[in-house]
Amino acid sequence: MHTANIELMLDYEVTHPAHFLFHIESAFHEGHKIIEERLTITPSMKVRTFSDERNGNRFIRLDASKGVLSVNYHAKVELITVPVPPHLDETPVTAVPDDVLRFLMPSRYCESDVMSRAAQQLFGHLPSGLSRVHAIESWIHESIYYLPGFSNSTTTAQEVFVQRAGVCRDFAHLGVTLCRALNIPARLVVGYVHFDEPPQDFHAVFEAWVGDRWVLFDGTKMAPIDRLVRVGTGRDAKDVAFATIFGGVTMLRKELTVDEGDTSAVRAEPAVQPALSLV
Amino acid sequence: MHTANIELMLDYEVTHPAHFLFHIESAFHEGHKIIEERLTITPSMKVRTFSDERNGNRFIRLDASKGVLSVNYHAKVELITVPVPPHLDETPVTAVPDDVLRFLMPSRYCESDVMSRAAQQLFGHLPSGLSRVHAIESWIHESIYYLPGFSNSTTTAQEVFVQRAGVCRDFAHLGVTLCRALNIPARLVVGYVHFDEPPQDFHAVFEAWVGDRWVLFDGTKMAPIDRLVRVGTGRDAKDVAFATIFGGVTMLRKELTVDEGDTSAVRAEPAVQPALSLV
Amino acid sequence: MHTANIELMLDYEVTHPAHFLFHIESAFHEGHKIIEERLTITPSMKVRTFSDERNGNRFIRLDASKGVLSVNYHAKVELITVPVPPHLDETPVTAVPDDVLRFLMPSRYCESDVMSRAAQQLFGHLPSGLSRVHAIESWIHESIYYLPGFSNSTTTAQEVFVQRAGVCRDFAHLGVTLCRALNIPARLVVGYVHFDEPPQDFHAVFEAWVGDRWVLFDGTKMAPIDRLVRVGTGRDAKDVAFATIFGGVTMLRKELTVDEGDTSAVRAEPAVQPALSLV
Amino acid sequence: MHTANIELMLDYEVTHPAHFLFHIESAFHEGHKIIEERLTITPSMKVRTFSDERNGNRFIRLDASKGVLSVNYHAKVELITVPVPPHLDETPVTAVPDDVLRFLMPSRYCESDVMSRAAQQLFGHLPSGLSRVHAIESWIHESIYYLPGFSNSTTTAQEVFVQRAGVCRDFAHLGVTLCRALNIPARLVVGYVHFDEPPQDFHAVFEAWVGDRWVLFDGTKMAPIDRLVRVGTGRDAKDVAFATIFGGVTMLRKELTVDEGDTSAVRAEPAVQPALSLV
Repeated sequence: MHTANIELMLDYEVTHPAHFLFHIESAFHEGHKIIEERLTITPSMKVRTFSDERNGNRFIRLDASKGVLSVNYHAKVELITVPVPPHLDETPVTAVPDDVLRFLMPSRYCESDVMSRAAQQLFGHLPSGLSRVHAIESWIHESIYYLPGFSNSTTTAQEVFVQRAGVCRDFAHLGVTLCRALNIPARLVVGYVHFDEPPQDFHAVFEAWVGDRWVLFDGTKMAPIDRLVRVGTGRDAKDVAFATIFGGVTMLRKELTVDEGDTSAVRAEPAVQPALSLV
Repeated sequence: MHTANIELMLDYEVTHPAHFLFHIESAFHEGHKIIEERLTITPSMKVRTFSDERNGNRFIRLDASKGVLSVNYHAKVELITVPVPPHLDETPVTAVPDDVLRFLMPSRYCESDVMSRAAQQLFGHLPSGLSRVHAIESWIHESIYYLPGFSNSTTTAQEVFVQRAGVCRDFAHLGVTLCRALNIPARLVVGYVHFDEPPQDFHAVFEAWVGDRWVLFDGTKMAPIDRLVRVGTGRDAKDVAFATIFGGVTMLRKELTVDEGDTSAVRAEPAVQPALSLV
Repeated sequence: MHTANIELMLDYEVTHPAHFLFHIESAFHEGHKIIEERLTITPSMKVRTFSDERNGNRFIRLDASKGVLSVNYHAKVELITVPVPPHLDETPVTAVPDDVLRFLMPSRYCESDVMSRAAQQLFGHLPSGLSRVHAIESWIHESIYYLPGFSNSTTTAQEVFVQRAGVCRDFAHLGVTLCRALNIPARLVVGYVHFDEPPQDFHAVFEAWVGDRWVLFDGTKMAPIDRLVRVGTGRDAKDVAFATIFGGVTMLRKELTVDEGDTSAVRAEPAVQPALSLV
Repeated sequence: MHTANIELMLDYEVTHPAHFLFHIESAFHEGHKIIEERLTITPSMKVRTFSDERNGNRFIRLDASKGVLSVNYHAKVELITVPVPPHLDETPVTAVPDDVLRFLMPSRYCESDVMSRAAQQLFGHLPSGLSRVHAIESWIHESIYYLPGFSNSTTTAQEVFVQRAGVCRDFAHLGVTLCRALNIPARLVVGYVHFDEPPQDFHAVFEAWVGDRWVLFDGTKMAPIDRLVRVGTGRDAKDVAFATIFGGVTMLRKELTVDEGDTSAVRAEPAVQPALSLV
């Protein structure tokens, strides 16, 4: 059994009063069990939390005054990995559940409505099913250069397809887009995972609806996909940004460590309920 | 009191078996009361319906075989108009309800993430509140040319802002985008309304969150906004397309009439429950 | 030996005085000999002509008053086909002549600066030379759908690459772009050619610098490339539009016939100097 | 009388043999007189030079082997400023000279073909003439944020217009585009000018055809426009890049100083012919 220890430190210089929407906590999701969790906001203040019951995403809202705002999230999470069978059929559109249908639609950074012909040409001839989405994942891995600094927060899948470069978010957006363009429901997943090579950072991958379930894929192949601690799921990056900020703010620090361990040591600790502790 | 009689006829030539998602019925919405309603699909077949409980949008899913598919939607709807007060304050972001927050985010056809400076320059100096959104509506009315055939189904607000031309959908997308860029939640609304000048067609307008309520605006000023029978509400056009089709299909006919009347005559008819009647 | 008879009729309704730049005459070019030529403008008026000595493009400028403007261009042209050797080397950039270098640069509709990785992935592994440009031509032929009405006058190669649809102009822009992205100088050529299937229209193809010469390619494969009567050569479509119009104008008619014949009959006619005849 | 002393140092790490096209020398242009000039390439090598006789742009081509390549350009230039009259008429299109017409066309980074309505709305109501282009210059100065790092080498005027941010090149592209969209010929000019605030760098401005002459404008207002030593003139940035590199290269250093002086001291020196000196 596999556990992850997450330690995230965010510092901001707030130059004008600002409203923050943070999305950094481990999701309410059957893929993991939160063993312990601690959120510390400095200076101490009132925060509001809510979760998106459809996706299990958890959000924190707060108003920060002028000065330095620090956010520290610590969690120990036990991963519950369900093996993916080697063969899974694609779901014909008619059998896609009503509440999954929206993941067939284009979104801000995933313009699947303009890429159906390209997707069909690249992958339309392949046998339908899990293996086809793996072919998409491999094609992205081989075709897109991992180039930090090349793309930015408004880069879309269409641009990534043309320019063939980006970071994990861009790889994931392209995966989502190619799937949707083939009528395979797909969405973005962000989370924490240990990278062998620093720096540690949030990771973004994609998830496709195959065989009546969501299956994770990662075109970057930077980390084992089954060790990702999910933070959020959405149509694309705008739904799952780790911080959405309304106001005048400068980021001073973003530090993340994700350590891996096995559960035996952890198990010795007294059981701790997921908690929101505010100093 | 105001009623609308809606008569929609859609014919498709289905060349390969296709899956249809229709979104043509009057929404479940407090802005109107459905007096009578009849949906006829030819040939007769099994359909599935579902509604989006967050927005009240109603959807019909069906599988069509080769041949001609006809859809006829008839409804008589009584509009319940709640007057909008002359003054309403904008809601500071911190006070935007959790489930309205997502209407601040960019979406496929509304790239508000790249337009904050432009929106601020055009409207940032105006007093906050209802009047500011009316200023956006008027600016769109004066600045964008209504040019059928200029834009297409993948045209975005950014393109409309540059090219200054489009149809109702484009006007509405730009309204949504400028509002979001100013931190005013906004969304797209499509529906039925009588146009004095033919042809009748689906109409698209936008809705902004002002004074803790949704208020309708229409940059085209083609029809009285308070006479719109709402079909759907969404982030943008992809959420509320009247038909999303998976398969090989040619549209043969789209005919719509929206007649207006007062309710007295209608009231004389026996009460009819909203019904889904399938020939 | 091969001749082409060209008959072009353009009618415009001029609603406000307008300035026209026409580019419809057979180019000054070694690939053909103009046997006879007649340009008729109605109403009779003063026109100015000039040619671009670098490319041999011929232009006509005129001011039209309110009313109907008719332009008729008739020409008989003998094609001088120089066979292309089966093998030609690409020219290393260092050996590209100074005045050909600009055809390596991106242009309005040919954004080669964002497509180098994609071009390299698709064609970088192929042996350098004429055969590689033929591979580009074939890939375009197989990958892009010929769909009139899909693109418009501002569609760029990047969009064609994503959307995989367009008309001859789009096919040619993509060819130009992929070549430039591989450091092969390339440009757009427009001209007259007989299509077996109507309607006749201006045709656009691309030309690449291989083996120290310009060689023609046509991703549409709609007509034999060696039967094209060149009208113009440019970086992309904006340089060689058949009509650029400044003012308020509606096109009433565009009719073109391009008939093919052999030269024997033509030879019997008295030699006619290329002439600009204005009624 | 005004002189400028230019000192440019460029160092590159050449990782694979590369072909360079440099465009760093003061143009052949009536706006200045080159008093002295020295170009030093290290290691010593054969270079080729050519100039574009239409614009006076001077280019250097060279092949660099693996290792460090250093380019040093030194020049002393006397500016010949011709005062611009306070009133100049715009030139009606019909009177635009044949060889200036191409500066009405859209180009890679200046998509004037999609901005005619926007330009007309912003500036169409103003009196025609020099003052209208000054209004464009002022509007750009007030509307576009100078934000280094925001845009990149493929950013276009359309994006700058939407996003309202960029660097001098973006400001100039937008000026070019708005002019062309109003049927005023316009082009990009790059050169050397002393900035009061470091760092010194190449500067880009725009030039419009007003009153039958080219007049310089600078939406950044970062330096006096009449002190710019012109390096090149083109349709947009792709024509006048200071270095276009084909091959594997890393820039190690770009240092520029532009000092101002008056000519008296300079005059005491022996006259020096412009020279290309290669160590």
